[in-house]
Amino acid sequence: MRNPLEVVKQQVRDLRPYALRTNHARIKLNQNENPWDASLKMKQETLRRLEDQRWSRYPDFVPEKLHQRLAEHSGWIAEGIIAGNGSNELIQAVLMVTVGDGKRVLISEPTFALYRQISTVLGAEVISVPLSPELDYDIRALKSAIELSKPDVVIVCSPNNPTGCVMSRPDLVSLLKTTSGVVVVDEAYFEFSNQTAVPLLEQYANLVVLRTFSKAMAMAGLGVGYLLAVPDLAREISKAVLPYNINMISQTAAEVAIEMYKTELKPLINLIRMERDRLFAELRRIPGLAPVPSRANFMLVRSPVPPSRIYKELLRRDILIRDVSAYPQLQDCFRVSVGTPVENSFLLEALREILTKTKEVARHAR
Amino acid sequence: MRNPLEVVKQQVRDLRPYALRTNHARIKLNQNENPWDASLKMKQETLRRLEDQRWSRYPDFVPEKLHQRLAEHSGWIAEGIIAGNGSNELIQAVLMVTVGDGKRVLISEPTFALYRQISTVLGAEVISVPLSPELDYDIRALKSAIELSKPDVVIVCSPNNPTGCVMSRPDLVSLLKTTSGVVVVDEAYFEFSNQTAVPLLEQYANLVVLRTFSKAMAMAGLGVGYLLAVPDLAREISKAVLPYNINMISQTAAEVAIEMYKTELKPLINLIRMERDRLFAELRRIPGLAPVPSRANFMLVRSPVPPSRIYKELLRRDILIRDVSAYPQLQDCFRVSVGTPVENSFLLEALREILTKTKEVARHAR
Repeated sequence: MRNPLEVVKQQVRDLRPYALRTNHARIKLNQNENPWDASLKMKQETLRRLEDQRWSRYPDFVPEKLHQRLAEHSGWIAEGIIAGNGSNELIQAVLMVTVGDGKRVLISEPTFALYRQISTVLGAEVISVPLSPELDYDIRALKSAIELSKPDVVIVCSPNNPTGCVMSRPDLVSLLKTTSGVVVVDEAYFEFSNQTAVPLLEQYANLVVLRTFSKAMAMAGLGVGYLLAVPDLAREISKAVLPYNINMISQTAAEVAIEMYKTELKPLINLIRMERDRLFAELRRIPGLAPVPSRANFMLVRSPVPPSRIYKELLRRDILIRDVSAYPQLQDCFRVSVGTPVENSFLLEALREILTKTKEVARHAR
Repeated sequence: MRNPLEVVKQQVRDLRPYALRTNHARIKLNQNENPWDASLKMKQETLRRLEDQRWSRYPDFVPEKLHQRLAEHSGWIAEGIIAGNGSNELIQAVLMVTVGDGKRVLISEPTFALYRQISTVLGAEVISVPLSPELDYDIRALKSAIELSKPDVVIVCSPNNPTGCVMSRPDLVSLLKTTSGVVVVDEAYFEFSNQTAVPLLEQYANLVVLRTFSKAMAMAGLGVGYLLAVPDLAREISKAVLPYNINMISQTAAEVAIEMYKTELKPLINLIRMERDRLFAELRRIPGLAPVPSRANFMLVRSPVPPSRIYKELLRRDILIRDVSAYPQLQDCFRVSVGTPVENSFLLEALREILTKTKEVARHAR
């Protein structure tokens, strides 16, 4: 018997696993979650509907009721919708049916790390176009890359994680027209941006839109995502989606979340957007810090103090953020999720203190 | 823009989607579920532990507590365990890190359809060895196939779905020794067979064992599975397992199920095994029917009446079974899950009636 690790594909062995530091803190601003929990009303209604359901039975083969609710919620047709165990599972399904050895995936970086990870596992070549120096999509460079390398799949995260930039609709349309591949728009944060590519589905049969319940919908603990595309394409993608991928509880919770969206979730989303604007304005007033404009529920902050140091200092104060300085172009950046008003005030106060202290230390050192 | 379906890989477009008829009936014997629900005690303890948990927060990056429980339950080390959203997700992960275009996967058929489906999507060539005429594993033919085609992965379902046959330990060892690829043993039904490959993990670094909570553990509605392998191999496989793949509720329910296994689940499993033996004996007494010996919680039955007819006649009587006559070698077979004693009695009564009626019709027709 040879070493069994040799049967693992070389590109997988070369890959560093996607991982996350697992520190805990009272104020958690590191994963772009909704800082408020799903409401008691949502939880109780979910549990009420589940009372008669048996845990021992498989859910329906196709979650038709959830697909119907998602259709109403998104304004797209149920036949072109696939619900998944988080949107990660669906980006994986798209890549599984489209790429393999010798295929090409185009992304803009810095962006969500899983696009590169999954593409690499599947044997595809990842072509990466940097964001502009202002951390915006560089549409010219993207179009050149498409013409040059003819990618099979283009992935656009909009708003982009971790930068918060959005691709404008005209820019997206020009990509859709330039490429002969599939364009995946990951709209994990679209509720905070008021911009969506869904109306383009009618015209562009090579567009795939991804959404999640883990951010604005306050259900990161339950894992629900969905995909929108023309029915023909959705049918092909569903061949790589495993049966019974959404458990009965998450399915029901997602149905309830949609039904209660306007009363239970929309007001929280509005509040998060207002807090994002306040956080941005206040961060700008802290000498040295430069927040990057964002259309999502998080933002990058450029800092004269090393991000790893900011991370540690905040953790000492029971605040958890994300050190993103290992990403290209983000050497001097940390990322904060927008929390509740109280959490954001704590964060601002702590950052003021850290930046002042550092300045004083620097002055004394001179 | 070309037709976007052209970007979908040819082998995917050629694939018929895995699907299941979605009829409903009062007595459900079509999916090999535990016929009893998880107990009230299990459900209440799960919900109690979840009371303080926020739906809006991601679960831990690695479900360490669940891995610990799975280690205690299985007798293997936590570092070599990966929990997943059902075992389907884990077989997919194994195949993602090992195969692609030009790679080979060896299976015995008839077996669970997803092995072929996922392998095909990933571009691998599926090499299929038929079961023996008695529907047992043909170990000689498997070894010849390994020597001839040098597969990268060998998948053994034991007990096998839909036949119920088991691969003996000596046979499994001889496969492990013959191949230089990974051998995946899917033990979805092992609790009904009292046979497991787990003790072999210590010696064979190319062995991967899969388990599920969807059968004996009465949690098909929640979707939990797990994988066991040597830590080095598990680490590589986990690169294709998506983060946050098990939601907080399923995670907690699985922990509770393990803790209460002896008192809440083991007695039900014993009862199912007793009922399996009774069902087998009684089916043999129905003229014309020939049940196939099974070590799982289901069995095949050979029938002189076309299985599609048996299916329909049983459905009219509110009993749902699985018509498996489209599988190779199973043209005259249907599959029944072992239900509760009452359900099994209803099934037997209905089959007696159907077989008698058919015989009378045949006699009149003469």
